[in-house]
Amino acid sequence: MSFARPIRLAMVGGGPGAFIGPVHKMAAELDGRLKLVAGAFSRDAARSQAAGDAWGVRAYADWRQMLAAERGREDGAQAVAVVTPNHLHFEVSAEALKAGFHVMSDKPATLNLAEAQDLAGVVAGAGKVYGLTYVYTGYPMVREAREIVRRGDLGRVRKVVAEYAQGWLSTPLEREGSKQAEWRVDPKLAGAGCIGDIGVHAFNLAEFISGQRVERLCADVSTVVPGRALDDDCNVLLRFDNDARGVLVASQISAGARNGLRIQVYGEKGGLSWSHERPNELTVDWLEGPSQTLHAAAGYLSPVALAGTRIPTGHPEGFIEAFGNLYRDFAQAVAEGRPEPGLVPGITEGVRGMAFVESAVAASRDGKGWVRLEGADA
Amino acid sequence: MSFARPIRLAMVGGGPGAFIGPVHKMAAELDGRLKLVAGAFSRDAARSQAAGDAWGVRAYADWRQMLAAERGREDGAQAVAVVTPNHLHFEVSAEALKAGFHVMSDKPATLNLAEAQDLAGVVAGAGKVYGLTYVYTGYPMVREAREIVRRGDLGRVRKVVAEYAQGWLSTPLEREGSKQAEWRVDPKLAGAGCIGDIGVHAFNLAEFISGQRVERLCADVSTVVPGRALDDDCNVLLRFDNDARGVLVASQISAGARNGLRIQVYGEKGGLSWSHERPNELTVDWLEGPSQTLHAAAGYLSPVALAGTRIPTGHPEGFIEAFGNLYRDFAQAVAEGRPEPGLVPGITEGVRGMAFVESAVAASRDGKGWVRLEGADA
Amino acid sequence: MSFARPIRLAMVGGGPGAFIGPVHKMAAELDGRLKLVAGAFSRDAARSQAAGDAWGVRAYADWRQMLAAERGREDGAQAVAVVTPNHLHFEVSAEALKAGFHVMSDKPATLNLAEAQDLAGVVAGAGKVYGLTYVYTGYPMVREAREIVRRGDLGRVRKVVAEYAQGWLSTPLEREGSKQAEWRVDPKLAGAGCIGDIGVHAFNLAEFISGQRVERLCADVSTVVPGRALDDDCNVLLRFDNDARGVLVASQISAGARNGLRIQVYGEKGGLSWSHERPNELTVDWLEGPSQTLHAAAGYLSPVALAGTRIPTGHPEGFIEAFGNLYRDFAQAVAEGRPEPGLVPGITEGVRGMAFVESAVAASRDGKGWVRLEGADA
Amino acid sequence: MSFARPIRLAMVGGGPGAFIGPVHKMAAELDGRLKLVAGAFSRDAARSQAAGDAWGVRAYADWRQMLAAERGREDGAQAVAVVTPNHLHFEVSAEALKAGFHVMSDKPATLNLAEAQDLAGVVAGAGKVYGLTYVYTGYPMVREAREIVRRGDLGRVRKVVAEYAQGWLSTPLEREGSKQAEWRVDPKLAGAGCIGDIGVHAFNLAEFISGQRVERLCADVSTVVPGRALDDDCNVLLRFDNDARGVLVASQISAGARNGLRIQVYGEKGGLSWSHERPNELTVDWLEGPSQTLHAAAGYLSPVALAGTRIPTGHPEGFIEAFGNLYRDFAQAVAEGRPEPGLVPGITEGVRGMAFVESAVAASRDGKGWVRLEGADA
Repeated sequence: MSFARPIRLAMVGGGPGAFIGPVHKMAAELDGRLKLVAGAFSRDAARSQAAGDAWGVRAYADWRQMLAAERGREDGAQAVAVVTPNHLHFEVSAEALKAGFHVMSDKPATLNLAEAQDLAGVVAGAGKVYGLTYVYTGYPMVREAREIVRRGDLGRVRKVVAEYAQGWLSTPLEREGSKQAEWRVDPKLAGAGCIGDIGVHAFNLAEFISGQRVERLCADVSTVVPGRALDDDCNVLLRFDNDARGVLVASQISAGARNGLRIQVYGEKGGLSWSHERPNELTVDWLEGPSQTLHAAAGYLSPVALAGTRIPTGHPEGFIEAFGNLYRDFAQAVAEGRPEPGLVPGITEGVRGMAFVESAVAASRDGKGWVRLEGADA
Repeated sequence: MSFARPIRLAMVGGGPGAFIGPVHKMAAELDGRLKLVAGAFSRDAARSQAAGDAWGVRAYADWRQMLAAERGREDGAQAVAVVTPNHLHFEVSAEALKAGFHVMSDKPATLNLAEAQDLAGVVAGAGKVYGLTYVYTGYPMVREAREIVRRGDLGRVRKVVAEYAQGWLSTPLEREGSKQAEWRVDPKLAGAGCIGDIGVHAFNLAEFISGQRVERLCADVSTVVPGRALDDDCNVLLRFDNDARGVLVASQISAGARNGLRIQVYGEKGGLSWSHERPNELTVDWLEGPSQTLHAAAGYLSPVALAGTRIPTGHPEGFIEAFGNLYRDFAQAVAEGRPEPGLVPGITEGVRGMAFVESAVAASRDGKGWVRLEGADA
Repeated sequence: MSFARPIRLAMVGGGPGAFIGPVHKMAAELDGRLKLVAGAFSRDAARSQAAGDAWGVRAYADWRQMLAAERGREDGAQAVAVVTPNHLHFEVSAEALKAGFHVMSDKPATLNLAEAQDLAGVVAGAGKVYGLTYVYTGYPMVREAREIVRRGDLGRVRKVVAEYAQGWLSTPLEREGSKQAEWRVDPKLAGAGCIGDIGVHAFNLAEFISGQRVERLCADVSTVVPGRALDDDCNVLLRFDNDARGVLVASQISAGARNGLRIQVYGEKGGLSWSHERPNELTVDWLEGPSQTLHAAAGYLSPVALAGTRIPTGHPEGFIEAFGNLYRDFAQAVAEGRPEPGLVPGITEGVRGMAFVESAVAASRDGKGWVRLEGADA
Repeated sequence: MSFARPIRLAMVGGGPGAFIGPVHKMAAELDGRLKLVAGAFSRDAARSQAAGDAWGVRAYADWRQMLAAERGREDGAQAVAVVTPNHLHFEVSAEALKAGFHVMSDKPATLNLAEAQDLAGVVAGAGKVYGLTYVYTGYPMVREAREIVRRGDLGRVRKVVAEYAQGWLSTPLEREGSKQAEWRVDPKLAGAGCIGDIGVHAFNLAEFISGQRVERLCADVSTVVPGRALDDDCNVLLRFDNDARGVLVASQISAGARNGLRIQVYGEKGGLSWSHERPNELTVDWLEGPSQTLHAAAGYLSPVALAGTRIPTGHPEGFIEAFGNLYRDFAQAVAEGRPEPGLVPGITEGVRGMAFVESAVAASRDGKGWVRLEGADA
């Protein structure tokens, strides 16, 4: 494995108090394939500078100014990580791409479907790598699950059940000074609530593993905590393009739940099950024969899954490593000069995610029952 | 505890090849509170006699004849267990009640809602105990879950997710000589498919534990295996009368699944989770503080849960024992001369179950989206 | 399956306050192969009568009198269940065998090794079935584990780790009015403490599954709770006759533990693991390839394991059913007129258990290090 | 949190084919507190250079030369990570300390006890930080376990059971070209086999969590795979200085096991259990009351445990992060100018580990039964 000088990365957002900024940094640098060199971490110049100092990188108060400055330096950033609240995803991503940067964006791709469709156009024209951190696709056992389905081991996929249960918004935290909660329940900054924050993860995971695309849905998207402006619970029935049935359950008011993402995919011959609580395992139950548990980094896994681990089997890896896998694949795409980031979700998944959110929210609000997933292929 | 002579029980159905007949016998006799004395195990006289011989009890080929004969004997049966295919539940139950027998019926109560409503009238007039073996309510940790909710430990219930996954009908077994499969997928004998066979269990369990009643639903009830006359998969969104959200997933084509019933109930302060795969445990996750695992037969449980175990904590009990709990409570009601069987589901639950099935099947067939649960309180 | 009239069973011990008497009754009668007809449940005539009344069977205050009386009745008992405290096991078993009864004895076989050796002589001469309720051998997945080893799937057995953790004697319960605790820590009634009460279960299970016999051991048998006369904790290193290594850990002062029996058996190609907390599962980890989980009652199991379940896969069975398997096999041996009870442990296992207890206690007390397991084959 | 320029780190060992070198690098750099700047990755100059190029750091073929060169540079390394095979640990650590470097050494501290005692003298005189990567002490839930014991929640510790099961040496891999296996079973390079490679981890963990020190032991240390020069299986009975009982089981021939470290600590009031397979959980079972499961990063944990996580509860962290915790604490000690690395194991633990290995190996070889742990406090 020959040496490649690390790709230089700049970050927009992720300042003090943010959860996801440090995760992006740790993940990006974990394998030495990228290196953070600059950031517009906060609109507040002092705060941005403090973050830059803490990380030993160049700091800017204004992301446009950063793009311009970094573009002009010989040692300037080559890629941009977008980790702002959702309402800025579109603008920052689009501008960065146009300015010649590769972009790794936190999900969702944009604030709404129209923006996502616009961004798809920008990506298509830019010739740069655009990746979207649907981080759960970075787990090696999720990738193994996808391989199992692709190989046809389960036969035709017939049913998918995806659940994502959190409980942290069971009380009106947003009125109690939680920065994390505040922007996530503000329609202007977040666009959608629970369905946009975590529902899209479950949606993306369902499509990623099953290899099928949601075609129709019937949704109950609602707000449980009184006074909250955005949804905090969503339950959706799905039909995939191969007519498989699906159920998607996501909630941020499932009190006591931590970050419980769990998916089951059933085919004609068996079903597989993966849970974020035991991420290094994958269970496969067969119509005939004993159940199997596959363990990360074991020699019998597919090359795709094996490529996603750094240490021997029995040594747990977690969220940061899964995130790191997305960055590693992103870096590989950059290094190879191909815009498609391989296993890393891109703008296609970004558009589909926003289409899911908008279709579900609208149908639920209007009491429409079943609707088509519109705009996903625009 | 003073001695009570066992209640004498007769069985209708449950002949050779049946799964549930022997379970009823073992469960009924487990605690010595009931004793099987007779049965019309099969319409085929020789087969019924063979079963009677095997169990050392009186055998009849015709259940009406049995009711008449047993009624006339001093040592005749006092109660009847109805374990036929669904289409006979109504007639046998009604006739037995009218003839002065107590009745323990396998679920569902009847073939359809109209019959269930009729049966409710018969029960009301008979003054006899009518119990329905929604067996999962017999598990001590399910009863503990109900107590936790009733005590208000979780606060107001906000969300219920109930899943019941089986895989045994993933192939067209009914065309391959499986007696179990044959009647279950025959509209005339079973009424409904997956939703009536196991969906009602999940429905009943959701109401039993949460203490809330389903008011509206939106269903996707369908047939996955080609050529099958009844549904084999159903996914339903629910709203309860306190506005709690619900999701019910039941399937008999979840290949690889065995008998995976699992329920989560979330309130304002925490959520509880019970799985049939680990029936002697109950997990409670709290918004604040460590998660708890409660173990069957432990001294800290409610009296209701403790009454449902026979042996010390750490000694697993299972399906037969849970079934036995229903029979024990049924026997207690008979002994006390009160028609209401306490924790044992009765005709009210029977009617609600059939209302659920009919509402869901009709709404799904007609593509109606959300509908009210009709007829449940008739 | 042709009908066999139930074998008539009498019980010695198991009166009010006992845990194990009702378990023997439920287990013996579960499958209709035996039927309790009499008992000397307590030396206190009134208490014995009360138990007899509660169960609807003949009651005696004196077990010798019972043996004589039942022997003389045409409908008298044919077999005797010995469920007294340990110090009576020898005498009751021996007398019952000599009087022509088959015997099912609770473990340990006797109070000490000398008695066990004597009893072996009685059994050899009696021509009757003698079974010993090392109940864990009755679990279907334990029997499957044994089959896997016997078939050679794991290759040569190299290591066995057996743990049995209870915590209920963490405090001096015996001085607080617990009848269960009182006799178990009384040298005269129990013989040995933790090692005799539960250590022998672990020992028996290790030999049962591995098919190997313990040849040497090095033990730390001790008393943790001050003032207790018998041991309440024991930890033993083992060497089997094929030179496999072993570790046996048993404790009744593992505070918080319920009834945690767990065994791991490793061979050249893989290892299996069974835990009483999930008795219907068996995990097999392979040197090459995915781990497997085998589920009770699944079609792919050995006939031996399948014979030990009553209901379909996914329907949990527990302790009473495992106990019932021993009684069912015992009944089968009686019915077939063969003294060897097949899979049910017999006097050979009884002698080995007592040899283990005596060797370990003596070696530990004398600080001897490694010693041979003496007297096991006498 | 004010910014501290990263501590500059050099590595000895960890070249191509090594497992642990990259782990040290990822862990050291994860939080930005250290930065790899140089390495003597291999005695083969070309191989060392290749590693240096891959990581973008200065490479040396000779570690002594590196110490001299780095010491002389203004931007030279301040600390040295020792990741060679065991036989070099002493010499490299001692020389580095004497040359003024802080040292983070992979375990075991040295090849044997005499060296460890010598190294203790060097550490005492050097005034530099010496840390030892008993990595399992870096897991936040292990640290929480220690806190629970220290707070006295369990009462006095009575029993400890520590198991470490691996299966990867079930076959003679060392004769099949595995570099990892080769040095680990070579007496000259590794000193001891299984007991030194993983037994010491279990030993250290038992002392770390329980807060008790092993005083006496009785060991069965042996070789199972024919032809192997070092032990591959060890089973040890322990007595701690407070008279608590202990059992330590470690094996590299437990075929099918991956990296199964598991520990149970029982006190008077309850017991705790931690398993490396679910590292983000800690189970506590109480003599009275429900069992508890504590989850990493949850707000109710001790500050010590909370300091060991980087992301919110429900987001799994793993081995690299645990390793990173040791490096972070090491860096903190360096930054604060205090030689004691706090929670990070140091030379005291290093000496105790080697004393354990030597006492156990000698006692087992000589068939001595119980022996004192000698030399641990030298």
